[in-house]
This record gives sequence, C-alpha cells and structure tokens, in this order.
Amino acid sequence: MRAEIIAVGTELLLGQIANTNAQFLSQKLAEIGVGVYFHTVVGDNSERLRQVIALASGRSDLVILTGGLGPTQDDLTKETVAAHVGVGLETNQEAMERIEQFFLQRGIVMTENNRKQALVLSGSHVFSNDFGMAPGMAIRHDSCTFVLLPGPPSELYPMVDRYVMPYLTDLLPEKQVFHSHVLRFYGIGESALEERLLDLIEKQDNPTIAPYAKEFEVTLRLTARAATAEEGEALILPVEEEIRKRVGEYVYGMGEDSSLHAVLVSELKKRNETIACAESCTGGTVASLITSVPGSSSVFQGGVVCYTNDVKNRLLDVPEEVLNTDGAVSRQTAQLLAENVRAKLGATYGVSVTGVAGPDPSEGKPVGLVYVGIAGEGMPTVVKELRLAGRRQAIVGRAAKFALFYALQMQKER
Amino acid sequence: MRAEIIAVGTELLLGQIANTNAQFLSQKLAEIGVGVYFHTVVGDNSERLRQVIALASGRSDLVILTGGLGPTQDDLTKETVAAHVGVGLETNQEAMERIEQFFLQRGIVMTENNRKQALVLSGSHVFSNDFGMAPGMAIRHDSCTFVLLPGPPSELYPMVDRYVMPYLTDLLPEKQVFHSHVLRFYGIGESALEERLLDLIEKQDNPTIAPYAKEFEVTLRLTARAATAEEGEALILPVEEEIRKRVGEYVYGMGEDSSLHAVLVSELKKRNETIACAESCTGGTVASLITSVPGSSSVFQGGVVCYTNDVKNRLLDVPEEVLNTDGAVSRQTAQLLAENVRAKLGATYGVSVTGVAGPDPSEGKPVGLVYVGIAGEGMPTVVKELRLAGRRQAIVGRAAKFALFYALQMQKER
Repeated sequence: MRAEIIAVGTELLLGQIANTNAQFLSQKLAEIGVGVYFHTVVGDNSERLRQVIALASGRSDLVILTGGLGPTQDDLTKETVAAHVGVGLETNQEAMERIEQFFLQRGIVMTENNRKQALVLSGSHVFSNDFGMAPGMAIRHDSCTFVLLPGPPSELYPMVDRYVMPYLTDLLPEKQVFHSHVLRFYGIGESALEERLLDLIEKQDNPTIAPYAKEFEVTLRLTARAATAEEGEALILPVEEEIRKRVGEYVYGMGEDSSLHAVLVSELKKRNETIACAESCTGGTVASLITSVPGSSSVFQGGVVCYTNDVKNRLLDVPEEVLNTDGAVSRQTAQLLAENVRAKLGATYGVSVTGVAGPDPSEGKPVGLVYVGIAGEGMPTVVKELRLAGRRQAIVGRAAKFALFYALQMQKER
Repeated sequence: MRAEIIAVGTELLLGQIANTNAQFLSQKLAEIGVGVYFHTVVGDNSERLRQVIALASGRSDLVILTGGLGPTQDDLTKETVAAHVGVGLETNQEAMERIEQFFLQRGIVMTENNRKQALVLSGSHVFSNDFGMAPGMAIRHDSCTFVLLPGPPSELYPMVDRYVMPYLTDLLPEKQVFHSHVLRFYGIGESALEERLLDLIEKQDNPTIAPYAKEFEVTLRLTARAATAEEGEALILPVEEEIRKRVGEYVYGMGEDSSLHAVLVSELKKRNETIACAESCTGGTVASLITSVPGSSSVFQGGVVCYTNDVKNRLLDVPEEVLNTDGAVSRQTAQLLAENVRAKLGATYGVSVTGVAGPDPSEGKPVGLVYVGIAGEGMPTVVKELRLAGRRQAIVGRAAKFALFYALQMQKER
C-alpha cells in the first residue's frame, strides 16, 4: 500500500509549529509495514487544498489528512474532500451529543458554529474523538482511502492508537497482526549499536529491526507480522535473544514509555528503597528527571545541587583539602558526595555527578570529563569516569542519564 | 514572492525525525514577508524527487530544498536539480579544501565519496558551510530560484542566518530591510496577551505583530519593513510603546535568545549577586534552568531539592511544627525555605518553590497550588501564591518559570 500524509494549516506554513503529526503517523504506518511516500503541508486555502487532494488521490492508495476539522470558516478539510469524493455532509449524532455535553458540563453557551464539528462525510466510517469535539473519519473513493483526523496531537494520538490503527490493519491485503517488542538501551550510542547488529539489521525482514535515538537513550523496536500475536512472539524471541547475547548489558528496560527514570522509580518502589542525589555539573537535572515521574515522592528523598565548592563543603562535608588537592571534579569528591548525600538524607542510595559541562575547561580538566558516584547501604561505593562529547546541554543530559543508569545497575547487583 | 520548501530524506518519511527544518525556514521567510505555500517531504528516490521539483518549479518563485547533499549514493538533490535546470556539476575549490582540512585535522583518511560533497551546480551562487562539509547553493532557472541546503540543523541554521537570508532579501522586488524587536513576556498567557492587544493585532500591517508561545513563555515579534533599519525602528517604537503601556508589567526582556533564566543570570552577573534555591515540587527544575546558562557558576550558589518533609527539616531547618501545622505546601514553609537556603548557602537571594504538582492532591491541598518564596539580603521576604492549571509537567514548568520571574522582579526592586 502506498500512503501519503497531508497536514492542513496555515500555522504550519508560518513555522509556528512543526509537523509532528506527520512524524507520529509515519512511525505508526511503518510499524504495520505501510510505506509513506510523501508528506505535504498546505494552508487553510480551499483551492490549494483541492489541488493537493487531487494529486494525492492519483498517486496513493491511502491519503491521511490532519487538521482543518474545527468549527471556524478556516476549517475546510471535510468540505474539500467531500467535493472531491462527490458526497455530502451529515450530522453524526454521537459526535453532536458529545459536543453538547462538553458545553453543558462547563456551563457555557454553545455557539452555532460548533455544530459544524459534528458533520461527517456521508457514508464514511467515523472515529470517535475521546479527547475533543471533532470526530475523525475514513471514506473510500475509487482505489483510494481518505482518512481525516483532527490536528491537535492530544486528540489525534489517542484516536490513531485506539481506532485508526485497527481500521488500517483491516485494510491490509493479508489479515495479519503486527506484534512489537521495544528494547531500551543506555550506555551505547545509536551508531555503535547498529554496528554490533549490522548483519541482523541488513537481513531483517520479519521481524523488522528499527533503532531510534531520543533524549540520549536508544530504543530498538522489533516488529513481527504474523497471523496471531503468539506467532509474532515466536518470530521475535530468537532475534531478541541474539540481540541480548550481543548487547544485553546495555538493555535496561522494555516498552514504549519506560524511560530510564521511570524504570528506576518503579524498581525502587518494588523494593521499598529510596534515593538521594548530589549534583554539581548536572545542576538539578537528575533530580528533575526523577521527580518528573508521578509518584516519585515515595522513593526520592531529595537532593543537593552543590554547584560551588563552598556548598560541597558546607552542606555535604567534602573537606576543603580534598577540593583543593584532588579538585571538585575527581573520583574522591564524587565518592564523598555520593556517600554523604546518602547519609545526610537517609536514603538507600546516594548518587553524585561532578564534571566539566563546558563551554570552558575547569581546574585544568577537559570539557566532558565527568565522575558519577553511587553509594549504597552496606555496599562499597562505586565511581565511574566518563568522557562525554558534545555541547554543554548534551553533556549535562548524558551525564544525568548515566547517573540513573548506574544507579539502576547498582540496584540490580545489590 | 511565492515560496515552498522541499525536504529530502527517507528518515523523515519513516518518522525518525520531524521536519523542523521546514519550520525554521518558514519562520525566517515569514520575517521577511515571503509567503510559504507548501511544504513537501520526499524520500531519497530519484524519480519522485524529480516529480516534486517539476511540480514546485511550476507553481513557486522560490523553491528551497533541504537534505540530500551528503556523500552517499542516497544523496540525490544536486543531481536531480541539475538535470531539471539543465546544468552540470563542478567542484567548488573552497569546499574541497575545507573537506580535505576536516580529514587532515582528524588524522583520518578521506574516502573518495567525500569529494562528491564539494560538487556544486555550474553557475550557482555558493553558500559556505561553516559547520560541516557540504556547501549550500542557489541557482535561477526561468522565473524560479532554487536554493539547496544541507539537512543537519547544526549546519543549516547558521548557513541560513549568515548567508541565505541576505541573499534572499536581495531577491525581493523592493529593496527593503526587515527590522524586528522581540518582546519577552512572563506571567501572562498567549491568549490573554492577544486579547489585550487584539485591536493592534487586527489592524497590524507595518510593523507586523506576531505572538508566539514556547516553553511557558510568550514572545511578541514586531517586524517593520522599511528602506533602512532607522526607518524600521521609527515604525516600531510607537507600537511598542502602546504595547508596553498595556502589558508592560509582564515584559521581562528583549531578543530572541533571552530566556527568563538567561536574563536572570546576566542581571545577577551585572550586579555581582548570587542566588540559591530550595525546591520541593519543582524537583530541581529551577536549578537546572539556571545552570543551563553557560557561565552561571559565578552567580548560582547551589540548591536543595527538599522533596520530603524530612529533608526540609534536616537540611533547611523548617521546624517540624510548621510542617505539621501549616504543612509543606504553605506560605510559612515557602518563606522559611527561601530564607534558610539563602542563609545556609550564603547567597544574595534565596528562592523557594513548594506546591502540589499532581496527579493527586497532597495535605488536602489541590493540584496546582504553589507557593514561591523570594528572600533577599536586607529586604523583607515575599511569598506569592499561584494557582496553576495543567498536568504535572506543565505545573512544574510554569512554577519554575514563575520562581525565576519573581526573582528577577525582586532583584529590580532591590
């Protein structure tokens, strides 16, 4: 199947927002093996939208449009597709009730133009909008299927996951399911990971193997096409086993939403343990990652951002002698920070990060040199030395993630 | 002038990255009054790229292509535009020398395919690549100008700012300059700001007025078209004055890169003052924003992430009685945290944030209730109460920015 994605909205052409909807949809379509050949962005302009739709319908089997389903006169997507397909618009009762409810609950008088949002193409398959007002819809015309979806990501993403993907999977010539495992890595770069798995990636077919790097973490998605989820699982397992044999030491978790900090918080919770951190060069990033996880308050004791030597000394008892002799960026300081923050805050684990984030060297030490210390109740403190590349924000981001990763490793070994 | 942007790269169609280059270029073109009518993404495929170029050249005066200038066989942009325009490719000496230097400096042997990166369209105007190897270029054909730019944002952005924008401004029919002021706001939402300025925004012409919201801050860009920068300035000033009359209390800075934390760090530096913070619900976010500014080490003393009552009490001496009676989320606690972190860390200012980030209420207090305390040497401590809306991450982000904003206000009043 040949697919393309059309995003409708002048705000995209003005650069006010990026077309992240096209990225999201492309990922989803790739997962079920549908090839995307074009993305187009067009403004809220009837004639240009008409041209884009005509062009797309001539070259693609599946045309997904996002945006332009709202209540204002600028919103033209439904009207333009209806004219191309040659059908009218009709009110969808479920959508109309949902819209009325929305205004009723908020005690606001509904303006008339909101009725427009409940209109759908006659004869179309309707997708409920569980997080907004305008429903999505799909309609076939000649050999082409048009799918119309709302623009706001908070409405689009759940609609796609819940309703559109099952609909599209049904359209595929062979009835099959797509079954995925997502492996999450830390401590290995995307290119190094690819290199170690190159032969597997090159001969990939079923399951497909897709590496993806984001926010200093790398994930690998294995997706199998099969008649059932069980058959898919059977196809994935030997490949996953081979991958784990080669790079298993870097795998820290599984699944789409399991960031390093989320996994750490959930592991600590399981074992009723707590953590505290002392951060110099990361300046609060480790703490803010941990506390970004809802419910982290039961495992996160707190932290000290000891940016100056004075604070390292005053709040965390690193002796001036150590700071003057070994320096703030040293194994010794990292060890003392981890041990003392753990003891002072009464946590199971103490994590410390001290290093040179740049742009300038410090204490004669190079940009990118970072020490991470992990102290645990009843275990010897471990200090890791890192040499990180990149600009200031990348060094800070990577150092913080390394601290989380080592804390997780340490916890497993304990 | 009618413009469109074509991004070339299969990684975009697979959803591995978002087309942020199109967003960036659209913003730049909007600033000089050039209308963008389409964005297109096409894969590394010669025939489809050819079709897209032919279509674009028929409907636009300016076609900007990004990506596909690299050394591999997948990189087809130059070859395909050259065939369309009917010119050959030739080696650009400056680019060739730069590429050879790159490998020489790193002590790596240059593979032959890298020579391809120094090829440019015969007769084209060449844009140097100061941060990479492949140069950009522009060539006119019939009534259409093609601009070819590298895909990596770290190469594209500076090339556009330094070389492409002056080139495009020269193409504009009237010789004019575009002169901008960017006003930065905090403490007022985008829609409230628009409402207060609606009549100005509706009758805007020269200067144009463009509000933009990002990371919990709002900016307003005033752009005047004029023969000279001085004339542009004269057009902007009365409009800016009117805006400041209405919403001046929320303006905290000017300019593209002046985030709230950058302005705070630079103001503190100017006056040789320092700051320290005590964070409960923001969990390190205030500290990490401040330390994200290069050179912040001279003004940031450090911070305590006092997530638990235990840490508020142990490290920052908030009496148990206060925590039990008034609670961790209270004016009293905010005041003591600000004062004590200032005293303990020896800073000019102490900033505290304590509140309920959610998802669940705490101490019987609602999600979104936040207290920000600001203590300063020789001045009465101020505590502000906030009622913030949104999910956990939005509440944390907004609360942290409010803390920075109040610190800045306090510093001005001191």
